[in-house]
This record gives sequence, structure tokens and C-alpha cells, in this order.
Amino acid sequence: MPIETIKWIGGTDGYAELIDQTLLPGEFTMLAVRDIETMWQAIKVLQIRGAPAIGIAAAYGVVLGAGEISDNASLEDLENKINDSCDYLASSRPTAVNLFWALDRMKRAAADSKAKTVCELKETLLAQAQAIRDEDAAMCRAMGANGADLIGEGAAVLTHCNAGGLATADYGTALALMFTAHQRGRKFKVYADETRPLLQGARLTAWELMQEGIDVTLICDNMAGHLMAEGKIDLVITGADRIAANGDAANKIGTYSLAVLARAHDIPFYIVAPSSTFDLTIAHGSGIPIEKRNGKEIAEPFGQRIAPKGVQVYNPAFDVTPHRYITAIVTERGIIDHPNTESIGRMVKPL
Amino acid sequence: MPIETIKWIGGTDGYAELIDQTLLPGEFTMLAVRDIETMWQAIKVLQIRGAPAIGIAAAYGVVLGAGEISDNASLEDLENKINDSCDYLASSRPTAVNLFWALDRMKRAAADSKAKTVCELKETLLAQAQAIRDEDAAMCRAMGANGADLIGEGAAVLTHCNAGGLATADYGTALALMFTAHQRGRKFKVYADETRPLLQGARLTAWELMQEGIDVTLICDNMAGHLMAEGKIDLVITGADRIAANGDAANKIGTYSLAVLARAHDIPFYIVAPSSTFDLTIAHGSGIPIEKRNGKEIAEPFGQRIAPKGVQVYNPAFDVTPHRYITAIVTERGIIDHPNTESIGRMVKPL
Repeated sequence: MPIETIKWIGGTDGYAELIDQTLLPGEFTMLAVRDIETMWQAIKVLQIRGAPAIGIAAAYGVVLGAGEISDNASLEDLENKINDSCDYLASSRPTAVNLFWALDRMKRAAADSKAKTVCELKETLLAQAQAIRDEDAAMCRAMGANGADLIGEGAAVLTHCNAGGLATADYGTALALMFTAHQRGRKFKVYADETRPLLQGARLTAWELMQEGIDVTLICDNMAGHLMAEGKIDLVITGADRIAANGDAANKIGTYSLAVLARAHDIPFYIVAPSSTFDLTIAHGSGIPIEKRNGKEIAEPFGQRIAPKGVQVYNPAFDVTPHRYITAIVTERGIIDHPNTESIGRMVKPL
Repeated sequence: MPIETIKWIGGTDGYAELIDQTLLPGEFTMLAVRDIETMWQAIKVLQIRGAPAIGIAAAYGVVLGAGEISDNASLEDLENKINDSCDYLASSRPTAVNLFWALDRMKRAAADSKAKTVCELKETLLAQAQAIRDEDAAMCRAMGANGADLIGEGAAVLTHCNAGGLATADYGTALALMFTAHQRGRKFKVYADETRPLLQGARLTAWELMQEGIDVTLICDNMAGHLMAEGKIDLVITGADRIAANGDAANKIGTYSLAVLARAHDIPFYIVAPSSTFDLTIAHGSGIPIEKRNGKEIAEPFGQRIAPKGVQVYNPAFDVTPHRYITAIVTERGIIDHPNTESIGRMVKPL
């Protein structure tokens, strides 16, 4: 059963509920998000994370923003509020393109709406947010179905960060392949990079796979090369936060190192992402902004200081894997082998 | 000023004193080690660590073992005790060859001794242990002098784990080059991998370099490839725990990944180690035993659980970097360019 990472409770005056992922796996707590500021904060501090889930959260954030406008206000007031909400939410995390994609969809839905009242426009917004969520769930299933057979019987898969149900509305991206292969009765083994600094692999991926009874072993990020040299890894599968028109893919820091190591060991390296992750306005990976996060995430993980006071820290949250290192990208529409501007252009159409 | 990582206090009935490295950088505590079991434990749990320092600790451990034999006992009793002590101490950590090298030296010193009394043989043992310590200090200085000019003006160095003063009796191995270059007035920058699971880079390397006023920035292990791609790294320098006759080098887990990444980015990769780190009885790196440590070091770092209960963990403490990835090995005797069986044979003589 997929995890309900984020959902909407009630009508246009309702609220969003999401699993507080900063507390996993120790605590499973649902966070009720009743205003747009709380949603901005939840995205910022990674209570909700993963590119597709961030998009859904942002869409619900727009609905929460709209809720601040009285039903007696003018349509123009609400339209202004929608634009302000989108600008505000866009500032929460700069790398995940699904965030901007979802906000664009919400703005477009409002612009295209034939709503004659504030009430009707709010209904349009909520319906659009729910559509984004439902489409994401369907895309997860489609990616899983398209890519599951890349995992052969007895294979050992390495994955990084969390591209699972917790990153989406349903089965995840990279992990959708594993859940689907598992459902098809395939036996295989997963190695999960713990993924410093925020340990999404240790906290979230290991937890999700264990929930489904999939054989998962936790390693530190710096062990991946050694496992490849030992012949322990047959393929690498990760998600992505933004993919440029030529296939260069931004994903959690450490993904690029894995791709280079996989190439050095002749191991295929796959990325799994819905078409909403492609940003065709960016030609190359060098154009993707890389979020730099607070050094405390490294020097004081989870409140515990592990480094000398005053030490300098560099904390890029993402890196870019050039398309030449990517064996294929699995999307909900099919598999793009040897991704490049041409092969991506055939599969993914501009907005 | 070098750090006094480990020293001997008093005569043959004295004791060893060492910095408890599990408490750094939060606490600077000297641990008095008055019996061999405490020394075995100190090596096992990494209160003392780093290949050369482990050798010195083991030598002092033999002296502590000898102290259990009464001055009125027979020479044979003491000789048996020395052999038992060496066997016992050898079981503390399997990968660091300096451990076995130091124990061999202690046994040989006893066997070659002309001591006629238990008292005299104890003096011989202490003198040999002190010689191992003093020689290590001299070797650190020599490695620093031999390799410092590999760090050019304005260079950015990446290092992994702790191959500093805390790993030796003096200036360290990899870090000796940095301390010496700094003393020569050179300006450069160091990036220190935090080095999961035990964070020796964050806790020890960053601390040591900051003590000397060297510009150091902490990163997570999985960021190294990204920094290389960004052009931020000019060279990589690490230590080693054991080097095979052909130059394949075992070092802290993650070193191999760095070497592969360095090669992919045309960045030179250097290893710094005294000749006692070479194990000419092992032809290839595949013959080096790799210590597997407790999975709790990953799943429960410093007592804090970060992964689901019951998760499987794989925790190799070392990996082996094939010699073809090593630009040069810096020893106290000189620099071995393109290390292989021939070039190493010329510089390092069998025991």
C-alpha cells in the first residue's frame, strides 16, 4: 500500500495534512497545515520533500492562501492573492522544478477559469491541486510499470536519498520501480545510501522499503564505490529534482559521484522522474540553480555538534549529473535511452 | 606545535597517556592507560586511531603487559608474556599493518636482547617502544618535508578521514604536508571530508587544521565529486593503513571513491605513509583483510538512532585503492611516482 504522504481534508476551507518527515523513522506524526506560511515552512525545512511532493504541497499552499480571501471579496482580490501566494511559495526551495511547474499550473487554472465568484474560483483551485495530486499518483504507477523490469531477478540495486512514496503522492519515482518489481514477485536486494547531511536514505528509504518487506541494507555514502568494486551492485536508480532539456539531471548531492563511479565500474545508472521534472527552458545542467543550505545541517546534525565551533562548512543540496553518465531516464510516458536533447524532445513536450 | 597524541609517563612501571579521540572536538581529555586490556580496548573503540599511532599504542601495550610480570619471575615467564601480549594486541584491529609491524619489532627486540634479568628486558621493551614513537615523529617531519611542495600556492586540497597529528606521534602523514607547507608560508585551502560513520574528518581533521590556523572547510563525503566538477579541488591527499607490494593501498572507507573521482576529473591523488605501512608480504590489494565494524556505528551514530530498528547495515571500515589510481606515494624516504612493485621495491626494503 502506498503511503499517504500528503492529502487535503475537507473543501475549499479545509486544510492539508502531511507526514512530518523530519521525525521519521522515530515518530510517525501527521502535521495539519492550515495556512500558507506553515506550508512554506514545511517545504523549507523538509517536513515535506521530494520534487513531486513539493509540487503538490505548493498547490495546496495556493489553496490555503486563497482561503484568506473572504468569499465576499472581489475576484480581483483573489487573483492578486493567487499571484502573491505563488511568488511566496516559489521562494521556499529553488532547485525543484515541480514547485514552479505546480505553481504555474495553479496560476493557469485561475487564468483560464470561467469562475464568476470567489467561491467558484476557490473550487477551481482546489480541483486543480487535487488533479496535480491524482496525476502524480498515476504517474508513479506508470513509471513503476515502465521501469520495473530494469531490475532483474537476483539483482542488487543502489539508490540515493529518498525517491519513494514519501517524495510523491503514491509509489514514488525511483522506488516505484522497486515496489512494482516486488509486486511482480521479483527477488532483489537494495542498498540505500544514508545520504548525508539529512539522512533521507537512512530515515526514509530504508523505512519505506522495510514497510513493504523489500530486502534493504543501509550503507554510508562513501561506501558506494567500494561496493561497486566488490561486484555487489548491478544497477543504480535515483530520482531527480530538475532535468535540463539535454538530460543533465539535478538530484540530491552525491548523485553525480554515484554516476561517475557507476561508469567507472560499467554499471548502468538510471534516473526515474515524471515529465514535470523536465525543464525545457534550461538547455544544459549548468543553468540549474543549486540550493546552498545552512552549514549547521552538517556541523550540528539533529542538534548534536560533531565539528569544532566556528568551522567553515560548504553545503550544496544538489549536484548535476551530465546526461552522458545517464543510461536511461524512466518517465511515466516511457523510457528515454541515452537521453539527449533530441530523445528528450521526442518524449517530453514543452508546457 | 604538534599534538602529543600518545606518550609514556615514568619508567617500566609507568603508564601510557593518550588523547581520548572519541571525545574530540567537544572534550579534550587525556586517558591514562595502566593495563594492556585498557590499551586493547582503546585501540578497538578508536580512542587511539590512525595506523602509526596504533603501532605506538600497541608497543606501549606490550610494555604494560610486561609490567604484570614480577621482577622476581623468570626471563622465560616474561618472554611468554610478551608473546601472549602481542597475540592479544594483534586482535584489536585487523587492517592497520603498523600494528603488526610494531608488535614484530617488540618481539624482535626481546629476542635479540642480551638482558639477563626481567628488569633489564623490561627496560629493553620500553626503550624499543620509545624508539618506535621517536622514529614515527621523525618520519612525520620527513614526509612533510618531502611532500609539502606538492601543495602549490593558492591550491585547494581535499583530504579524507584523519591522517594528522592525532594519527601519529607528531605531525601526521597526509596532514604533515599541510603543516609543513603552512610553516613555509604557503597559502592554500583544505576541504575535509567529514568521513562517515565515525566522522574523523569533522571531529579531528578540521580541529587539527584550525589549531594551526589553516583554512579548512568541512564537507560531506558525497560532495567531493561535485566540488571536483566545480573546479574547486586541485589535489587529493590521504593517508593509508596498509599498502601492498604493488602499491594498492587500504585506507579509510571512501578513499577509493575519491581516487576514482579524482581520475575522472584529472586531479592528482596522493597517499602519504611511512615505510612501515608497506606490507611487502602482500602482493596485491586483494590480499589485505578489510575490517567490518558494528552496524550501530551507522544506524546509531553517537547513540542517536537515525535508521529504522532492525535495518540491515553493511559497515566495511576500509577500502582498497588500486595503485593505478595513485599519482604518487609520499614516504619518509622520498616520493614514489606511479607506484608499482618495481618502484616500491626500490624505495622500501623488506623487513
